[in-house]
Amino acid sequence: MSHFQAKALYDFHGEPNTAEMTISAGELLTVTRTDVGEGWWEGLNSQGKSGLFPEAYVEKLTSTGPPPIPAPVFQNDDWTETNQTSQDNDGWDDDWDEDPYSEIPNTRQPRESLYANDPNLHAFGKDVDTISEMSFGVDNKGTVTKKSFNRFSTFVKSGGESYILGTLKVHIEESNKISIIKIDDGICCWAPIPPGDYYTVVVASPKKESKLKGLKSFIAYQLTPSFNKIQVSRRYKHFDWLHERLTEKFSFIAVPPLPDKQISGRYEEQFIEHRRVQLQEFVNWVCRHPVLCNSEVWKHFLTCTDDKLWKQGKRQAEKDSLVGANFCLCIEAPDKNLLQSFVDDTVETNINFIHSLDAAVKNLMATAADQSRKYATAFKKEYTKIGESFYSLGTAIECVEKATPSDLATGIKRVGTAYFEIGKFFEEQPKLDWEPLLDKLYMYKGITSSFPDIFAIHKGAQQKRKECEKINMPPAQLSEVRKRTDTVSYAIFAELQHFKVERDADLKVTMKNYLNQQINFYKKIVEKLENTLQAFD
Amino acid sequence: MSHFQAKALYDFHGEPNTAEMTISAGELLTVTRTDVGEGWWEGLNSQGKSGLFPEAYVEKLTSTGPPPIPAPVFQNDDWTETNQTSQDNDGWDDDWDEDPYSEIPNTRQPRESLYANDPNLHAFGKDVDTISEMSFGVDNKGTVTKKSFNRFSTFVKSGGESYILGTLKVHIEESNKISIIKIDDGICCWAPIPPGDYYTVVVASPKKESKLKGLKSFIAYQLTPSFNKIQVSRRYKHFDWLHERLTEKFSFIAVPPLPDKQISGRYEEQFIEHRRVQLQEFVNWVCRHPVLCNSEVWKHFLTCTDDKLWKQGKRQAEKDSLVGANFCLCIEAPDKNLLQSFVDDTVETNINFIHSLDAAVKNLMATAADQSRKYATAFKKEYTKIGESFYSLGTAIECVEKATPSDLATGIKRVGTAYFEIGKFFEEQPKLDWEPLLDKLYMYKGITSSFPDIFAIHKGAQQKRKECEKINMPPAQLSEVRKRTDTVSYAIFAELQHFKVERDADLKVTMKNYLNQQINFYKKIVEKLENTLQAFD
Repeated sequence: MSHFQAKALYDFHGEPNTAEMTISAGELLTVTRTDVGEGWWEGLNSQGKSGLFPEAYVEKLTSTGPPPIPAPVFQNDDWTETNQTSQDNDGWDDDWDEDPYSEIPNTRQPRESLYANDPNLHAFGKDVDTISEMSFGVDNKGTVTKKSFNRFSTFVKSGGESYILGTLKVHIEESNKISIIKIDDGICCWAPIPPGDYYTVVVASPKKESKLKGLKSFIAYQLTPSFNKIQVSRRYKHFDWLHERLTEKFSFIAVPPLPDKQISGRYEEQFIEHRRVQLQEFVNWVCRHPVLCNSEVWKHFLTCTDDKLWKQGKRQAEKDSLVGANFCLCIEAPDKNLLQSFVDDTVETNINFIHSLDAAVKNLMATAADQSRKYATAFKKEYTKIGESFYSLGTAIECVEKATPSDLATGIKRVGTAYFEIGKFFEEQPKLDWEPLLDKLYMYKGITSSFPDIFAIHKGAQQKRKECEKINMPPAQLSEVRKRTDTVSYAIFAELQHFKVERDADLKVTMKNYLNQQINFYKKIVEKLENTLQAFD
Repeated sequence: MSHFQAKALYDFHGEPNTAEMTISAGELLTVTRTDVGEGWWEGLNSQGKSGLFPEAYVEKLTSTGPPPIPAPVFQNDDWTETNQTSQDNDGWDDDWDEDPYSEIPNTRQPRESLYANDPNLHAFGKDVDTISEMSFGVDNKGTVTKKSFNRFSTFVKSGGESYILGTLKVHIEESNKISIIKIDDGICCWAPIPPGDYYTVVVASPKKESKLKGLKSFIAYQLTPSFNKIQVSRRYKHFDWLHERLTEKFSFIAVPPLPDKQISGRYEEQFIEHRRVQLQEFVNWVCRHPVLCNSEVWKHFLTCTDDKLWKQGKRQAEKDSLVGANFCLCIEAPDKNLLQSFVDDTVETNINFIHSLDAAVKNLMATAADQSRKYATAFKKEYTKIGESFYSLGTAIECVEKATPSDLATGIKRVGTAYFEIGKFFEEQPKLDWEPLLDKLYMYKGITSSFPDIFAIHKGAQQKRKECEKINMPPAQLSEVRKRTDTVSYAIFAELQHFKVERDADLKVTMKNYLNQQINFYKKIVEKLENTLQAFD
């Protein structure tokens, strides 16, 4: 793109000692690069000095309309770039599920360490007081991402500025409107799914499929929604594309994470089954979310069986203009202004909460991964050692009693065998308790890690509002700005409330399952030892 | 003692490159030292060369009677030397239980490591092919002792030579006679205790007592035999003196070990109670042994309540001439010659057995000590860590739900607490399972470690017999030698049989107790988790 002129709409104070450049409202700029990313442009000011500034703070002078909506950013460059050379370019048939990932140095791990080496499981320090620092270093798919280098960037990138300032006027169709309703005591929530509309989707039967006469092979998961019972076949890359769309569009919603893009050994049965379980978790979470479960792109993903229609829907989703903060245009929030102190308190409490929760989840994940590994290694070894010690005592006694055998040697050897078997119980156990717990916690880690961005957008909106209050904005316009800022707050409150209700139900089931499995495990040990005791009767 | 003349009775081939000296039957020697120890004398041969030779191979020329019986060796020099300066010298009142031991660098150990640092728990290598090498490096009280430096020394020291050669003629009173009876299939045993004569002794109520107006204090254990119900008060040093007498006298019997002379922190309640338990084990074993339970010195120890009578009995026991191999004079063995091949096979089998058993016992002790330590440290820590992880998740959730508390936070915190408590179960558990097992195994370690000496005496007797068969010994005399050698074999077989019967019964009970405690332990965990599960109902 060639250089063009732009006018600064607002003051922006660049961070000293960074590439950022301070600009003043009304200043003329020459934009030299628009592909810096994350909502930043590069340009020259009137003095010819070069630097970065937020795209949303300036207005392209050659443009006649409103500032452009940020284009969907394809973060997954691997896919889009690698596969343009494939036989078709709609992303449906190309195989980024293959080689591009095999260079990821994430070597195949045995079951016991599925999560064992995850560096993200180490809780971060607690002295976080700005949201930008709160970025958890992982995106909501669990992979490491570039840190936002400015607290506004998430806000800017999401199109928050143009939304708050009301520069984008779009007609919202009735079917796209999303209500936030108030329940008592200042609590609000997304209009719940009408009871009859609840549906579930089963992720099942991962199948190895191939094309190009076997040259390329991949795993396809079969999804069957309860509302139509029509099975669709989806690969991980389709999930990934969907996830991209959902996070981009619903920047106020904590989209659950997909399983990691761990690739090596991905045709191994255990890996595939584990990924299926994690995809099922993802799907469950989406199905229970009043906004996500009704979104067009999701419905398209769930139901489209026709190749041509798929491509159409795919392109349409990628062109969706109601993404990021602009999604707020669809929201019908309660028509009551929020008390600023209430908003501030609630958000601050929840920032702290999400921060603690994130730390606690990572800590428990680390413990669960550690236990999972130790069950199969150290603990198994301890019990095997006990078994060996008893067994060799039995053998020693047996050796002199060949002529006059006693039950003693046999009995003691049986004790040895019992402990060997208990060792095996330990090895087999994590897939029943620790690993399902880990899979669940992985979801929560993804969700908590997406909240900082949500809070950042909220903070950006609040600051934009304050800026508008400082300048001499006409009261009617300011009132609109405040209403839109409240909508952002309402959206966040609704999402926090949804998260609360979900985790209450979900973690309760999770804990019950975990405890039941632990109880069964120790009962099995008791039973084994009780059987062994009979050898001495 | 001044020098005296002696005549070599038999050939003795001194080990080259040692202090030993080769002597020939009939050779005249000048004995220069008789206090070398372990059955050795020092002297000059006719060429004036000096060296060591077995006392039992020579005859003192100035003596008119049989060669002197080796005097009781007080191995516990600490006691006898330290306390000669005490106000009385009968060993009753002096306090070697005090300071002499405090310099032993055996610092006070917490419960979990009662056996943890025992260097003897490491199984020795298996390439043992001579009995002398088989000495397990610990005496039967578990303390390290000087190694026999010659395979004959145990035999010589025990007076085996003079017994086999019949040089000692003593009238044995009927009450002192001990029968070995044959049961079927070549198995023989000590004449069993008549059912009505079985008795038990309770070791109880360790009391801290003091004398010299509190200047000296010690622990006294109260022993109450079932046959008279009269309580006697005995200190560890009395047990030690008794043990000395029993091992000296009954060199064919595996006298059970006393608890270690671990002294530091010995007034600590836990140490005292543990010692009581071990003394009870010792007492139980003696009570069940047909020979030991009837021995005079043991009865004296059990019943004497009078200070003066105690001293008399003590002196008498120390002057007992029927000690070591001479104890065989009391034995009435079956009047049937043993087949040499049977003797050789049985002994070899049992040498291998005891060797394996010793290794297996030490191995299991090492495991039990290791588990005992880990229960209280590493395992407790694992469960505490799990508890902390759940608890902090509960706390994190609780912090945002103060306004609208849910059961979830409380429930998850309860799971945390449950694991803390399971951690405490682990800490408390070893005293119920691993430690009693260790105490029992300690007994077995002591017993297996006393068998090599028993086998050494047997081997010495066998070799003496072979020597007699080689020289032109009159047939009648040789027949006597063979009979006496058989008596030694019968004694060993009887003792091995006793050990078999004992361990069959004893280890069965031990294993049952251990398993029951383990079962209860895991049941407690199940119960704790089941209670916790209710938090989510």
